[in-house]
Amino acid sequence: MARHPFLSLQPDEIEQTSTAVRTKHAGKEILFRSMGIKEPSRAATVAFLQGTGAAPPRKTYVSYQIKGEPTVYEDLISLSTSDSPAAITSTRDLGTTNFPPATNIDMHRLEDIVMRDALVQAEIERLQLPAGAVVQPEPWPYGTESSTPAGRRQYQVWMFLKSLDAKAREHPSSNHFAHPLDFSVVVDDLTMKVVRIDRLPMRPDEIYVDEAAASTRTWQHNPDAEYASELQPKLRHDLKPIHISQPEGVSFTVSDDNEVVEWQKWRFHLDFNWREGVVLRDVTYEGRPTFYRLSLAEMTVPYGDPRVPYHRKSAYDLGEGGAGCTANNLELGCDCLGAIRYFDRWMNDHEGNPLALKNAVCMHEVDNGIGWKHTNYRTGRAEVTRNRELVIQTIMTISNYEYILQWVFDTAANIHFEVRATGIMSLVPADQGAAHDGMNYGIMVSPGVMAPIHQHIFCLRIDPAIDGYDESKIVYEDVKAMGWNAATNPYGVAFGVESHSITQESFLDLDAKLNRAVKMVNPNRLNAASHKPAGYKIAVPPTQLQLADPGSMHGVRAEFADHHFYFTKHDEDELFPAGEFPWQHTGGSGVRTWASRKRDLKPGQGVVWCTFGFTHVPRPEDWPVMPVEVFRAGLKPVNFFDKNPALDVPPSKQSINKSVEVERTQREIALREKQCCGK
Amino acid sequence: MARHPFLSLQPDEIEQTSTAVRTKHAGKEILFRSMGIKEPSRAATVAFLQGTGAAPPRKTYVSYQIKGEPTVYEDLISLSTSDSPAAITSTRDLGTTNFPPATNIDMHRLEDIVMRDALVQAEIERLQLPAGAVVQPEPWPYGTESSTPAGRRQYQVWMFLKSLDAKAREHPSSNHFAHPLDFSVVVDDLTMKVVRIDRLPMRPDEIYVDEAAASTRTWQHNPDAEYASELQPKLRHDLKPIHISQPEGVSFTVSDDNEVVEWQKWRFHLDFNWREGVVLRDVTYEGRPTFYRLSLAEMTVPYGDPRVPYHRKSAYDLGEGGAGCTANNLELGCDCLGAIRYFDRWMNDHEGNPLALKNAVCMHEVDNGIGWKHTNYRTGRAEVTRNRELVIQTIMTISNYEYILQWVFDTAANIHFEVRATGIMSLVPADQGAAHDGMNYGIMVSPGVMAPIHQHIFCLRIDPAIDGYDESKIVYEDVKAMGWNAATNPYGVAFGVESHSITQESFLDLDAKLNRAVKMVNPNRLNAASHKPAGYKIAVPPTQLQLADPGSMHGVRAEFADHHFYFTKHDEDELFPAGEFPWQHTGGSGVRTWASRKRDLKPGQGVVWCTFGFTHVPRPEDWPVMPVEVFRAGLKPVNFFDKNPALDVPPSKQSINKSVEVERTQREIALREKQCCGK
Repeated sequence: MARHPFLSLQPDEIEQTSTAVRTKHAGKEILFRSMGIKEPSRAATVAFLQGTGAAPPRKTYVSYQIKGEPTVYEDLISLSTSDSPAAITSTRDLGTTNFPPATNIDMHRLEDIVMRDALVQAEIERLQLPAGAVVQPEPWPYGTESSTPAGRRQYQVWMFLKSLDAKAREHPSSNHFAHPLDFSVVVDDLTMKVVRIDRLPMRPDEIYVDEAAASTRTWQHNPDAEYASELQPKLRHDLKPIHISQPEGVSFTVSDDNEVVEWQKWRFHLDFNWREGVVLRDVTYEGRPTFYRLSLAEMTVPYGDPRVPYHRKSAYDLGEGGAGCTANNLELGCDCLGAIRYFDRWMNDHEGNPLALKNAVCMHEVDNGIGWKHTNYRTGRAEVTRNRELVIQTIMTISNYEYILQWVFDTAANIHFEVRATGIMSLVPADQGAAHDGMNYGIMVSPGVMAPIHQHIFCLRIDPAIDGYDESKIVYEDVKAMGWNAATNPYGVAFGVESHSITQESFLDLDAKLNRAVKMVNPNRLNAASHKPAGYKIAVPPTQLQLADPGSMHGVRAEFADHHFYFTKHDEDELFPAGEFPWQHTGGSGVRTWASRKRDLKPGQGVVWCTFGFTHVPRPEDWPVMPVEVFRAGLKPVNFFDKNPALDVPPSKQSINKSVEVERTQREIALREKQCCGK
Repeated sequence: MARHPFLSLQPDEIEQTSTAVRTKHAGKEILFRSMGIKEPSRAATVAFLQGTGAAPPRKTYVSYQIKGEPTVYEDLISLSTSDSPAAITSTRDLGTTNFPPATNIDMHRLEDIVMRDALVQAEIERLQLPAGAVVQPEPWPYGTESSTPAGRRQYQVWMFLKSLDAKAREHPSSNHFAHPLDFSVVVDDLTMKVVRIDRLPMRPDEIYVDEAAASTRTWQHNPDAEYASELQPKLRHDLKPIHISQPEGVSFTVSDDNEVVEWQKWRFHLDFNWREGVVLRDVTYEGRPTFYRLSLAEMTVPYGDPRVPYHRKSAYDLGEGGAGCTANNLELGCDCLGAIRYFDRWMNDHEGNPLALKNAVCMHEVDNGIGWKHTNYRTGRAEVTRNRELVIQTIMTISNYEYILQWVFDTAANIHFEVRATGIMSLVPADQGAAHDGMNYGIMVSPGVMAPIHQHIFCLRIDPAIDGYDESKIVYEDVKAMGWNAATNPYGVAFGVESHSITQESFLDLDAKLNRAVKMVNPNRLNAASHKPAGYKIAVPPTQLQLADPGSMHGVRAEFADHHFYFTKHDEDELFPAGEFPWQHTGGSGVRTWASRKRDLKPGQGVVWCTFGFTHVPRPEDWPVMPVEVFRAGLKPVNFFDKNPALDVPPSKQSINKSVEVERTQREIALREKQCCGK
């Protein structure tokens, strides 16, 4: 039987793909970069979903280089069928300006190269480090500083020192970020050679490095700041365990191919790729389509530090790394509580072999408090239900930082996307002797360690299928005062909804003053009660957009980060809002470019790109590892149901929930009894 | 021993208070309204907290009327001590324009009065209701329509019909809101007589009621819309139970007087009153003060329907009702899961007797996902902790509506205030034959039932004590682009924090473009790492403010609802941002008035009023009972700690958490084994 178009990349497909490439380039050594399913057209896929077409042929894409050669290629491969073997159907020459992302394999290799380099060794010598000091490189994407393409893929490697204390140094979670060194290393990815050393500014007003001072500067001793539990002076001992159990089992089912989840009237395919991580496909509720495809599509993390070379710092954690390929191997009892279902997913290594991402995704149910309640005050009778959620979680580690990414379904037909930002902030060295108090682009979190201000700007790609695959339209609604009017608003209290259609590729900003919200609606499905079109609303508060100057390289590159919404015409080749290859890219690719075409959006054609984020003003409280910063964006049904879809959730009862009452104090019991029995 | 100033009102204090009033008015029948602790001065209380002063004397306030007389009085009573008996120390004549709130006792009484009234019976006759029909009145505060005080306290009573189906009608949760009748009843609170009938508009453009049409109109049959579980055609049967347990007990302790809670370095008094419900007093962390007093201080719910008499609809659910006196009797296994501690609190009845609010407050611990995590990608070692929360919950039922109010403490030293709005929307009758499709101030949720657009605007009163009781200052911070500058920002990427002091009574609006946040800081406590003052930041997104015209009665009355923040000088007599007596008030009392004094705010003097809310554009999905709408505002430490305060939370481990892995599919297991063992 033909494979489902939403089946995530399978190990045999990875092997077919790399075999095809190896055969084509027989005798040459191939460096495999990224591999994934090349998604078939929406039209063909929808025909298949609706039973009017065959399963579209499975295809993969693969980017690779011939080892030692600069050019990057991307081939498309038709995977084998009962009729035909796997075959390369097209090849794209990406030249020397489009750079695939780095993997953890790259990172390890870079650390070695840097440490063996003579320039680096000379810098380490300059520092006159104490005996036993261990230097720790931390590779980063190079960023972009000029609109002229660099023509070669580069890394910027930050340098740190491990703790001088042997116990801390040997610990697997030893925190070298407490000891940033005053130079960084630029590495050429092709030659795998160090290109140059960039010395780092140490004073807040040192926009360009004072090379004279830097050339003779030696090491300064910073205090340790360990986060590993074994390295804490004392742990809390009074936090009693909470156990969460499902004695009758879980409420979800997973198909035998491990891809289709059904839970509480929801059904969806749990697709996955190296770049976006979890991708939800064909999300339906009681068989009614809601979304064709949902994903976190990109993220940018620009820094506000003006000093060279920090002006380049702007990470694209999906396109330069990947939410899938950096997914943590999740552990039972650590990353979730309760009854947890884990999923493996697959990617390739640099040799083109399948690499299992074990426990890359987990899924579990959560009791999230009351779902709805009403008490009739006359009878005292309360009707109350719980809000049950199904959480699909991936945690990505991208160098120093973690993002906990969740898609959350609930019993009231809502979907939420939740991000929890945690991990270790990007830290830079600072002169302990300099006055940093007036600095406004960062703070000192520890002597010698500065945390620069930065933003985390996320972009969701929302491909709607509101109660049908080809009928969705996009609208936005403002809520406005009606204006005092003797005839229609004689007391000046009125306000109402003003609805606007999005009919062209364009952008839009939120405005709290207007309570503005974007909705996707199906004008052919009118609600029986309200006579308004079935829809889903995007519930997201306005957050600060990119602060870098629009003309700066950060502004030019992050095409999604300047507006809360972009709307574009559906295209399988337009999945990533800052373009396919963010690494050192110089702009001109992504949603801003696509939206500028201003093409008409006919029903079923519109894709919604939703941007939100945090501006992180660092706190000492975020050091050495930061407590989660939580953000939720919602997709909420509006006129999709005739009444509360959670009306049939069974009542919340002690006979089912088995809670326990904590004993009251003697005084309270006495007071209760005295008053009750005294009457 | 003298009682603690933060001890909530005790039953013997209620008795002392009413005895004193009864004695003073011997021979007269007293109608007791509200009673509470009259809070001692902050200065005297702080002296007591710091051990430099005695416990300030306990005092109560009580509002009451002589039965049959219009004047409202408020007396202050010194409660008895070892030296002296209880005594009235002052009396305030509130005249006939300041109206205390209604209680459930009032509501029950009103229902009877309305149903026995001849005018009401005539209206019911006009409707020609079918046999067996049961009319259900729903009393509301009257609202305000003119700046001339009415001189008498009035109710507006909405009229509904219970289901015609006997089973539904007899059910204790029978939903009469599906059957709104076309008239309302105005009742004089003093005479307890119906003043007049207000017929209701039935068409969307009927700004003033068409009395000719209304006078001959008869009943229209609307479909039932029941929300009780027993009245649903079918309940879900596939939601498996989740059990939450704490086998080693809970992590909190409660003092013997049932008032002081200690948990995870937090300590606070769980004060409570009829009006604000839970009030947190003297909140400390590791013995360091953070907040002197935290409370939800008021809420307004203005409606956008311009039609008479709906132009009056603007409820003040605290000042006209009370979060304390409408608190639900919370039930084990229904309102929370896990190990739950319940608290009783006390109010008075109309005769001046103590009335126990049983289980008015509950407290329990919640596992709220990951608290912080970092994986060192080199070693694969993950350090991960859970985010534990302590939730203090009260649920108020105010006529048709519920607010689930939570104060939430966590292990990272954050405090959150969470509101979940649920219950039944305020519904109005609508002509089933009229076209409602173009209406923008509401929607039809069911034939004959219209849900008007409305806002829920909340105001928190935050009385800071940042690392000291008398040193807090208020600042706000914007994050701004620095502007391209060859010398200081040569690449145009820089941004930073701009800090502003609040030195006068004033107001402020949030702005997402500026990432604006209000902070309370102690300039005398500089952070050892950052050298910045210890502080707590208010983390709240900007939400839509009041939409009614500023000159309308809604605009005039809701003094807090036009700006996100007000700042005023501390005063024990200024606790309520829309004034002490919102019922039919005509403005001129509250934060807008106080802020207009523009008095200087010296350290320790400033009080912060924080306004946020939802604009509720009704959905059929909110009918007949709405799924929770969740809002969280945070108080987060900034420069208060030298590092992550959750660093000493023990690691999250399976040996403690006892989670369970859900079995994988056979295909997945096979794939895993094949790939692992094949190598």
